[in-house]
This record gives sequence, structure tokens and C-alpha cells, in this order.
Amino acid sequence: MKRRLSDIGEFNLIESIAKTVKTGPSVIRGIGDDCAVLGYKKNKYLLFTTDMIIEGVHFDRKKASPLSIGHKALAVNISDIAACGGTPKWAVVSAGIPKYIDNSYANDIYKGINNLAQKFGIDLVGGDTNRSEKLVLSIALLGEVLKDELVLRQGAQQGDSLVLTGPLREKPDHLRFMPKIKESRFIAKKLMPTAMIDISDGLLSDLEHILKKSQKGAFLYESLIPIGGKKAPVKKVINIGEQFELLFTIPKSMLKFIPKGFYVIGEISGSRPFITFVGCSGERKKINPRGYTHF
Amino acid sequence: MKRRLSDIGEFNLIESIAKTVKTGPSVIRGIGDDCAVLGYKKNKYLLFTTDMIIEGVHFDRKKASPLSIGHKALAVNISDIAACGGTPKWAVVSAGIPKYIDNSYANDIYKGINNLAQKFGIDLVGGDTNRSEKLVLSIALLGEVLKDELVLRQGAQQGDSLVLTGPLREKPDHLRFMPKIKESRFIAKKLMPTAMIDISDGLLSDLEHILKKSQKGAFLYESLIPIGGKKAPVKKVINIGEQFELLFTIPKSMLKFIPKGFYVIGEISGSRPFITFVGCSGERKKINPRGYTHF
Repeated sequence: MKRRLSDIGEFNLIESIAKTVKTGPSVIRGIGDDCAVLGYKKNKYLLFTTDMIIEGVHFDRKKASPLSIGHKALAVNISDIAACGGTPKWAVVSAGIPKYIDNSYANDIYKGINNLAQKFGIDLVGGDTNRSEKLVLSIALLGEVLKDELVLRQGAQQGDSLVLTGPLREKPDHLRFMPKIKESRFIAKKLMPTAMIDISDGLLSDLEHILKKSQKGAFLYESLIPIGGKKAPVKKVINIGEQFELLFTIPKSMLKFIPKGFYVIGEISGSRPFITFVGCSGERKKINPRGYTHF
Repeated sequence: MKRRLSDIGEFNLIESIAKTVKTGPSVIRGIGDDCAVLGYKKNKYLLFTTDMIIEGVHFDRKKASPLSIGHKALAVNISDIAACGGTPKWAVVSAGIPKYIDNSYANDIYKGINNLAQKFGIDLVGGDTNRSEKLVLSIALLGEVLKDELVLRQGAQQGDSLVLTGPLREKPDHLRFMPKIKESRFIAKKLMPTAMIDISDGLLSDLEHILKKSQKGAFLYESLIPIGGKKAPVKKVINIGEQFELLFTIPKSMLKFIPKGFYVIGEISGSRPFITFVGCSGERKKINPRGYTHF
């Protein structure tokens, strides 16, 4: 469940709902995290998330193949389950299909969904197909998480290390990325994570989500931020969304267990949600939590 | 989860998926009913459904108030839970919001959702807001059902009575209708229903869904079909969708328990999915199961 300010501007339907909604005792965590967390079994919670992708907003039908559109529609949801330390289980697919889409194109969309579903052991259990002017896919995904493996945006502690599951890119493959379920399972089982999120808005914005929910600050080190693919300035890449790496915090004592390919990029500081960006030559810059175009 | 042929024409993304999807043992019922039915607790199943409503397809923004648009987006989903004998519990809302919608209009949409959610004790637990050209709302809803109160489309038995929860209308209020949860609870608890569906496509089409899944036929009596509101020909009204009454089958022995306001309209016959329409003067007409514009 994403909240891209760039998409929606000044208001947000879901945030508006959150302000007035009171939830019952079965809701462990409602609006405001990557997934909702619901009462379920003795040792498990149910995770519930939804994401919608729309032609012209999240993909360009001229550049994206139908297979990759289906892939993306499910992948963004799986990434939400990964961000909470869970395992994806069951999905329903709502589709708005324009007249110009033929049978073979539609079949390829569902093949893209289905291939990814099979890879992650997800059962497609229902859905709804409608006519629409633009292609719209909205998937809702359920997952499970062991109670003691649940990770939320809140919970980061002063002194925790800030870790990324992989390098950021100037041009991430937002269509064919592979959600980090394997990495998430490892983190949840072995690293005692205190907070986690997937990088959908951009490293800075998503770090800010963790800091606000955790009521902490952070030091972020320019020299430690890994850039993959084509060389690009760190200050640019940290504002680029749809990376879908996981960003998480762990106690320093767990650092010795992080595997190759994970990157420590900073540290959680005191109790205010500011990011202190430490440049390569040691200069410091405070970033306030509303900063979307910072540099 | 609706499958309006009128909306989508010759193909259907979800039906296409259904043909190739194999599901695991946790899926009691996957694609092809009003809800998916999932393993959950010792004595309960989890119900999972989704429906999308799109401006210009399911509502006209010039005629529908934002409150009623929000209401409808959730109500169609609650109706699916009702059709399976369950109780709605948790919802997530994906929204595509056009630029011309302002804060107050958006707030009214969520008020429409929220008011109905509160009426049925549903917790709104998350969602996703995006920019789009047309207003799109896609809600996914979870519910619970006691294992021995689950009702599906399949299961109708020869000799069962065919019952409606209320009269059909030529112009049903498709925006502000109240989903039949109370009626569904009564049916599931007291009437030993063998099959059930909500009337979204039209009485004939939805009866055909029950007959196909149950591999039975039915007699439908023109003189017994109740028409509400303005007088209208039965042969017309039985093809009008979005009525959202429940259509269900019960053993004849349970007829004495049906309450005032429910209507017996026919009877389940032998093993082929044909509807025999019996006119007011006794003339019989066989309707084949693909008949969407029958008369």
C-alpha cells in the first residue's frame, strides 16, 4: 500500500479515512503501514494489502509488455508483504480493460500475474473484470506472518544500523523487479529487525516513513549508499522511487550476520524524525521530513 | 466478484485465469463464486472478494453523489459476502482519483464508504491512492463464515424451492442499495440453503450461474415473480442487473420458515442447466443457459 505524493498531490483518500476510522480489536495494525495486520491464528497474523496500477501513471502501454504489466501489478503487492516480514498466500485481481485490448493481450497480462504467483506459491482465488477507458489492475493480496516475525515501519531504536538489501539505481526496472521475499524471510528470521519498509517512494521518503512512525532520526552516509547499474549521483538516486529494495533497521549486535549484498548505509539517532545526510567529504545537511525534492 | 457479460463482452480476465490456475489445499473455493473461500480457523472459513467500480461504466459522475459512489463501491462487495452466508470484517480501498476531484469531493467518497462500513461493523484497514483519468474505486473485502453456514452457487437439489429476498425492480437503486447481510444471516442460520447468489447480472443470468454450478434445471413462474416500485413487465425485469437481492434454494421442508417479504418464484428440476419459464397463462418456454437477451 503505497502513498506516492508525486501521484496524488495534496490529498490522500486513505490518509483521510485513517483520521476518522476507529478499528476493532481484531485489527493489530490498520491504515498507515505496508500491510494491515489482522488477528488470525494462535501464532500468526494475517497480512492484507492492495495496490492499483494504472496505464499512463504506473506504466506506459507503448513501452511495457502485457506480461510485464501483469508482473508489476502483483509484484508491488508482494513487496508490501515482504516489507512486513511475511509470506504471500492468496490474491484477487480486479481489472479494468479498455476496448482496444484483445484476447491475446489480456491473456498475456494474466500470464504475467500467474507466472509470478506460481514463483511465490500464491493462489489466485478470484477477481472482477470490467470495461474501462484506461487499463487498470488492482490486486489485493493476503499473507501470513509469524507473530514474532512481524516487522512494521515503527520500532527503530537509537543506535540501530540502517541496512539496504541491494544497490539503488537511477533507472530501476520498475516493471520486472523481483520482490524481496527471500531477503525478507532471512531478515525476519535471523537479523532481529526493528523496522522495515520497501523503497517505493525513494530512499529518503521511505526512510522518513520509518523515522516518523518510530519517532527517531537518522544519519545517512553518502559514501555508503550503493549505486547499481549505470553510475549516477547519490543525491539524485536517493529520491528515485520504485526501487523495491527493502530498507530496515537492526541492532548493531546483528551486523555480523548480514549477508553479502546487503549494505549498511546509516544509523538511527535521537528522537526527532530528521535525516542528517553526511556527504563524502564529511559535510552535514539536515533534511526535514517533508523534503521530497531536497537538493 | 461479478462477471457482467454486458461490461466485458467476449472475454474475461478472471475466467481465463481460472482455466489454468491450480490452487493449494488452503483454497476451499477459488475463482468462480461470489467469494473465494479459504482455510482459516477450526470452525470458520475466510471469505475474500473484490469489486471495482469505474466512472462512466458503473456510475455517472453527473448523476451520482460522491457519498453514493463510496457507498456503492463497498456495498457491491458486502453483497458478495452476503451471497456466501458470511459476515464482512475488513476492507482495503484502492482509488484512482482524477485531477478534477477536490478534497471535499474525495472526503465525501470516503464518508460514503465509511458510513456503510460502520453500519456493518467493517474495519477499513488500508488502501492505495493514485492519480487516474477516470474515477476508479476497487475494494477488497474479507469476511468470515461458520463452516456449516457457508453457501455457494453449487449445491441446489432437485425439488428445492427457489426463493428471492425481495421484489425486483425495473430501475433498482444501484447506487444506494443496502446489501442483504441480515437476510443472509437468517437464511444461513434458519433455512438450510443449498445454493445462493446475489442478483448482479439479472435474475435469469444469476439463476443460470446457480444451475450451471449445481448441474440442475429450474422452473420459473412468471406469476410468482414480485415486481417492486413502478409496474413493469416481468420478462423485462428478470434481465435487469444490479438488483442485489439474494436468490437462493432451500429444501421444500423449510418453506414454512421463510419470513414475510421473501418470495418463492420457482423450483429446481432435473439435471440439465435449462430454465423453463412458465408464463401467466401456463405456456412454457425453455431458455438456454447462454440467454442474456431472451425475449
